[in-house]
Parts: sequence; structure tokens; C-alpha cells
Amino acid sequence: MRRSVLFVLLITSVLSFAQQEDEKQLRAIYDMALLNGKGYHWLDYLSNQIGGRLSGSLNAERAVKYTREQLDSLGLDKVWLQPVMVPKWVRGTPEIAYIETSPGLTTNVPVCALGGSVPTVASGIKAQVVEVQGLEELSKLGREKIEGKIVFYNRPMQADLIQTFEAYGGCVDQRYAGAMEAGKYGAVGVIVRSMNLRLDDYPHAGAMSYGDIPVTQRIPAAAISTNGAELLSGMLTLNPDLRFYLRQTCRQFDDVKSYNVIGEITGSERPEEVIVVGGHLDSWDLGDGAHDDGAGCVQSMEVLRLLKETGYKPKRTLRVVLFMNEENGLRGGNKYAEEAKARKEKHIFALESDAGGFTPRGFSLDGTDQQLELVRSWKPLFEPYLIHLFQKGYSGADISPLAGDEILLAGLLPDSQRYFDHHHAANDTFEHVNKRELQLGAATMASLVYLIDKYMK
Amino acid sequence: MRRSVLFVLLITSVLSFAQQEDEKQLRAIYDMALLNGKGYHWLDYLSNQIGGRLSGSLNAERAVKYTREQLDSLGLDKVWLQPVMVPKWVRGTPEIAYIETSPGLTTNVPVCALGGSVPTVASGIKAQVVEVQGLEELSKLGREKIEGKIVFYNRPMQADLIQTFEAYGGCVDQRYAGAMEAGKYGAVGVIVRSMNLRLDDYPHAGAMSYGDIPVTQRIPAAAISTNGAELLSGMLTLNPDLRFYLRQTCRQFDDVKSYNVIGEITGSERPEEVIVVGGHLDSWDLGDGAHDDGAGCVQSMEVLRLLKETGYKPKRTLRVVLFMNEENGLRGGNKYAEEAKARKEKHIFALESDAGGFTPRGFSLDGTDQQLELVRSWKPLFEPYLIHLFQKGYSGADISPLAGDEILLAGLLPDSQRYFDHHHAANDTFEHVNKRELQLGAATMASLVYLIDKYMK
Repeated sequence: MRRSVLFVLLITSVLSFAQQEDEKQLRAIYDMALLNGKGYHWLDYLSNQIGGRLSGSLNAERAVKYTREQLDSLGLDKVWLQPVMVPKWVRGTPEIAYIETSPGLTTNVPVCALGGSVPTVASGIKAQVVEVQGLEELSKLGREKIEGKIVFYNRPMQADLIQTFEAYGGCVDQRYAGAMEAGKYGAVGVIVRSMNLRLDDYPHAGAMSYGDIPVTQRIPAAAISTNGAELLSGMLTLNPDLRFYLRQTCRQFDDVKSYNVIGEITGSERPEEVIVVGGHLDSWDLGDGAHDDGAGCVQSMEVLRLLKETGYKPKRTLRVVLFMNEENGLRGGNKYAEEAKARKEKHIFALESDAGGFTPRGFSLDGTDQQLELVRSWKPLFEPYLIHLFQKGYSGADISPLAGDEILLAGLLPDSQRYFDHHHAANDTFEHVNKRELQLGAATMASLVYLIDKYMK
Repeated sequence: MRRSVLFVLLITSVLSFAQQEDEKQLRAIYDMALLNGKGYHWLDYLSNQIGGRLSGSLNAERAVKYTREQLDSLGLDKVWLQPVMVPKWVRGTPEIAYIETSPGLTTNVPVCALGGSVPTVASGIKAQVVEVQGLEELSKLGREKIEGKIVFYNRPMQADLIQTFEAYGGCVDQRYAGAMEAGKYGAVGVIVRSMNLRLDDYPHAGAMSYGDIPVTQRIPAAAISTNGAELLSGMLTLNPDLRFYLRQTCRQFDDVKSYNVIGEITGSERPEEVIVVGGHLDSWDLGDGAHDDGAGCVQSMEVLRLLKETGYKPKRTLRVVLFMNEENGLRGGNKYAEEAKARKEKHIFALESDAGGFTPRGFSLDGTDQQLELVRSWKPLFEPYLIHLFQKGYSGADISPLAGDEILLAGLLPDSQRYFDHHHAANDTFEHVNKRELQLGAATMASLVYLIDKYMK
């Protein structure tokens, strides 16, 4: 009896010592992030000294150089560049679009070419418009009503969904496949309502695809601002015969060489097991990519710095990966996974931050029930930091090629209400990132990485 | 046996029917708020057509008129104005302040008079500066080192606290009592570091008090922007003898008549029991008071509208109260409680929104353990809306005079990270309020009011 009581006491005190140690470590991480964070400073540079970083651009290369230098300065065990060929698409001169209600009577509207789109002919295209609420309407309309026209996809994001990424998921097919599908019915171009929950004047870029349609049969695709979409739709009800003019000079070049930027702290006990934390270094070209995904990059860099500065020595190898080309190709993510596989590296956990630098609320987790249970057992540790979401779901694009039986994938879940006000638009800029919110995200990521490294079997 | 099984089945199905009904009602409230909200539109008017609404100002009276008209248009059972005498303090001409390192060599810094402060003499004051980190340093320094000088309170908000209101609570004594205390040691004025977690150029206003110090012995008090505070502190280390110049022409007038704006839906079953939901209609004068507390006002108005429009008929009398003069007197809150007591009204629940129009996270609850337990039993209903905080604590200033044995008080808890970037400053403006975040707050409040009305004994 006595012995078992002692044993229970011992176990309890060991448990409570471990718990206290974890509480202290998390507190140290958050304190460091809030009082002596570097992420905001890095983001300032990436956003304001470099700016938009579309794959294949000079700015993307400057971002590679800058982040590599910053990682070099952190005293990690290893920092390197992983070469990867990326697509190079260039916007060209500013797009021009207007609504023509009668010859010579025109109203300009803000548009931007979608990433990957072909240009219009040099003089632009002018055609009647057929408005639809989604891809499925095309077959109902048929070639007769579409041929020779511009298809205008105007299904808005669903405002009653609480998590805005769900609303995005419900709309983005129009942008991604709109031109591919409309082209099959003889449309001469497509205009897509921007993926934005607000009414404003910013067109939102983003990737689109032609699938395997031959180059000569591709039609140009542009996004129109939400206010522009409302205007066009309203004018169409008054005058269904109005014409829409679009001119864009974007162009696809041959692939060019770029890099994933990688830094690591080699594991002290199990160096062969790898934990990855990352974001994507490329961005769209209209804003400076502060939220998408400068924030995720600097938060990921912070994770290694925070753990190092608070004196934690990871058992596993801890890697930060700044992936190139998430936006229009995922070449960096694919490359990283490919090489990891070729080198037979064992990845046990990957965490991505690619949902904006807003107040963190928790994580989206893609793993086994046991893994999720383990993570959820740490909920009380996260409570003082108001981290409460540990939901099963999608993790992140860049780390998705790492998926496998044993690896746990996770995505940081920041508050999502304002994300699509800025996403892929000219107003995705540094001044819309709050320092505390950004740094809280970094601390939250570092805390999860610490707990995974320490407790995952 | 059979009977008890039937009974259990009956109870279970009743429970589950009630639960389904509640889930539907909350969904209807949130849908209405996100798809057909009015709050953002009201706030646009309050912020951009009216603007800052300091008690006793013309704008405050315009806000009374506007919100009364809006409540009138909602088809409530009763709308009225409750007269209340309020202080009238006026800022006067723009404040001027500079640091003089040697005669003629000056650097301007952004300051604003604190609310309630006396003016400087017309030519301004110029004096040496003694920097302190808080009130408690004054007695250590003693009259010898303070007399004839300006006391500069420079204790910053503590950035490592996760909930920023705690950091505010740890600093605000400098603003509120700084002049009162420094005056006792012969200081000629005080400069207070703005209650702001960012470094920027906005001075933040706010109330201060002289206690019972006679008018003739009161010294002027001003806030300095956080960048200005850093500059002054840095220059003091280089030149402790520098002088600080301050000129302000603010003035206290006699009290004037103003109003609380009140609307109600009379209870269908227990009209004598009252539920109050409110915010404060007055604001500081530098910005347009969009977050503090235009947001709380329009959210409170929305609560009645959302419940009405979704077809809910409250059992109790449901009142929206837009309190006048929270910022520099609390006269409206006191008046409302006084009259409620005089009329022997039974208030069972009061909910205030006065922490900004940011994404709602939950509630701060001030009540009995049983009341808190009841509210916490609804956590699952709030989960789909990411509402997770049900913490015991302070509710709100305006409703605090209603405190008593039986009433449950509550405050909406929005995400607090950005609140003090704007609080009482010229950048508390409409464009910093996100429509979705504002409307989610209103829906969250309406949901709690619905559940309280339905289930509270």
C-alpha cells in the first residue's frame, strides 16, 4: 500500500513537474515573441523594401537572398538554398477594362489579369457579356448563348459562413476553371468576381488553369473588383446588350530557376527525424504579400529563433522551409517533398502558416486520431494564450506533398474575418498586419512545435 | 420499467427538440447579422456623418437624435430619451508641445490635453522634466526634485500580457491620477505616455481626475504619443536639463442637459423583468469613436432588431440603452440605475459592449456561480461561431451601477489585440472597423440575450 502511494505521488509529481516545465516554456516563448520579436521587422523589410514577390521575378530572388541572410544570422546549424524551376508569368502593362453601354459611352472598371492567363489581342477584346453564377450554368446556356461573348462569373462568397476559407472554397472554382470551361462553349474571354467578402475597388488576382487546352484555344481571364462586379451586373439588367472591353498584356515565359530557402537546427537525440515549419516566400504581384504569405514566412523563421533563444534544444531536426511558388505552381512544395523522399528523410510533423498574420485561434490538423488526441491533450497549456481551435482539416498547400501515413500535418488558424479583404489584392500590405497578432501566431506555432518534439512518439 | 424508458425517451426528445430550436435560432440570428445587418450602416453614419461625440457637444446631441430616429424606425414597443446632466469639457485650440534642448532649439511632439484637465496659462508652460515610471516614484523623489517641474509618466503598457485590457489596467493610474499626485509635490504640469501598445504618433486622450484638489491648485495634464514619449525619454538621458513646453486651452463649462437613448420590446410573459443591452453613445473628440463605442451602440441596437426580425418574442422586457457620458463622468450609467431603482424595476441581466468592434471571442461574466454555470452550459451552442471565452470578470462601466445580488452582468469580449492602437485617439475611425467582425459581435450578443431570456429562472 505504502509503496503504491509513493509510486502515485512520484508519478503525480513527475507529471506536475513536466506540466510546470511546459507552462514555463510556453510562457518564455510568448514573452520572447511579444517583447523581443523579430518577425515584424523581417516582414517590414520583405513588404516595404522588397514588395510583391511573384515567382520568377527579381523581387522573388531578392526575397530569397534576404531571408537566407537573416537565417544565416540566427546561428542555426545549417542554412541552404534548394533549387527549383518555377513558372514565370508577367502581368505586363496595367489592364484596361470598361463597360460600353452604347458606342462611345463607357465606364471604367478595375480589373486584373488572373495568374496564368493569356493576353488579349493587342487592341483588346470587346464583346457582349453573359452573366452566370457558376460553372454549372454553362451547359444550360449552351454554345448558342455563349459563343463570341465574355462570360462573367458573379457568384459571391457566402457571407453567412463563419470561417471565411469555406466561403472561398465555395467560389474559387470560377476563378480557377472559369476560362477553361467557358472556352469550350466558344466564349472569347472571362471576367470573374473577385474573391472578396467586402464591396470595394480592388481586383483580386489568383491562379487559373487551362487544363490541357492547346495554347491557341485559350481565352483571356481577368478578375473584376466586387464593386465593379455589382456595377456590371446592375448595368446588365438595364441593358443586356452592353459590351465589355478588356485589354491585358500578360505573358508566360519559360520556367526559371529559383529556390526554397531552408534553415535547420539539427536534432540532439533523433537528428534523422524532421519537423518542418514553413510558409511560402512567393506572393502575388499587386500588393506586397504581407499577409499572403510574408507573415507565414517570418512566423516560421521566428519559430526556430524563439526556440533557440529560449534555450530549447530540439530532439528532432527542426527545419524552417520558405517555399517558392505556392501561388501559381506549388513547385517548391513538390520539390521539397520529392527530395525528402529521395533522401529517405523521415518527416514526423509539418506545420504551415498561410492564412494571414491575424490573431491566432488554433490549428487545423491532418493526422491520425491518436495524433489529434495527443495535440488536444495540450489544450490547457494553450488556454492562457486564447488558443482554442484544434480542428481536423486541411493543413497547407506547401506541406501537402509530404502527406503520408506517419506524418502529422497542421496549419495555423488565425482569425479569418479580414483575410479576404486583402487576399491577392493591392491592399495586401504591411500596414494591415498588426505586430502583436503576427507575433502571437509565431509563438503559438513555436509552442506546438516544442510540444510535438518533446512528446510525439 | 417500460414507463421509465418512455419517460427518458420523452425527456431526451424534449431536450433535443429544445436544443435544435436553440441551434436554429442562433443560426437565424447569425445569418441575419451577416447577410442583412444594419449595424455597419448605422456606424458609418455615427462615425462619418456625425463623428466624435464628447459629452455636452453638438455632435453628442446629433447622435442622440440620430439613434433615437433609428430606434423609432425599428417598430419597438417604446423608444424614449432619459434626461441626464453631463459635464461639458472642451479641448479648445490645438495643443502645442515641444522639447527645447537649448534656447531656440526645439522639437515638436504630438500631445493632447487629457479630459478634465485645466488649461496652461495662455503663453504655455515651460519647465524641466522629471521622468518617472509610476505614481509610487513621486514620494521617493520628494518635493525637492519635483517642484517647479513637469512630471513625465512613462511606464509603458506591458506587451507580454495576452489580454490587452490587463495591460491598460496596469498603466492607466498614471493618466487618471498623475496630475492629482504630482501636484501635491509642486509639479507645474504632467505629461503621460499614451496608453498604446504600438509606437506611433497619435496621442491618446482619456479621463483624468483632480480628486478634491481646489481648482486653483490644479496643474495641466496632457498625453504624449508613444513615439513622442520615446523621443523625450531618449533626449532626457542625453540632456537631463532640457525643457518641455506645453500650451493647451481646454476648458470645463457648467453641466449641460443630455440624454440616454432607450428603446424596448415589452416582455410577453414577464414584462416587469428587464434585460438591458447597451453601449455608450458619447466618445472622445479626437477620432470618430467608431470602436469606442460607436460599435457597442450599433451592436446593442442590432440585438433588438435581430431578435425581432428572426421572430423571437422575448418573455422579459428587452431594452437597448445608449448611455451618455461613459468617458468622463458615467452620468448616464448612474442615472439609468438610479431611475431603475426609483421605479423598482427588476433587472435580471445587463450586457455591455465597450471593448471595440473586433471579432467576438466570448463574454466576461459578473454573477453567481449558478448563473455562470448556466451560461457555460450553452458553450456548445456557441462553438460553431468560434465563441469560446466565458470568463468571470468585469462587465462594463455603464452597467456597473446596476450591480446587485440577483442581476447577472456581462461584457462582450472581442479580440483585444488592436484595441489600444485606436483607443481614444484620432485613428479610432470607421475604416478600422470590419463589417463582419462588428456584425458577428452583434449576433453573439443577441444569442446570449435570447438564451438568458429563455432559460434564466
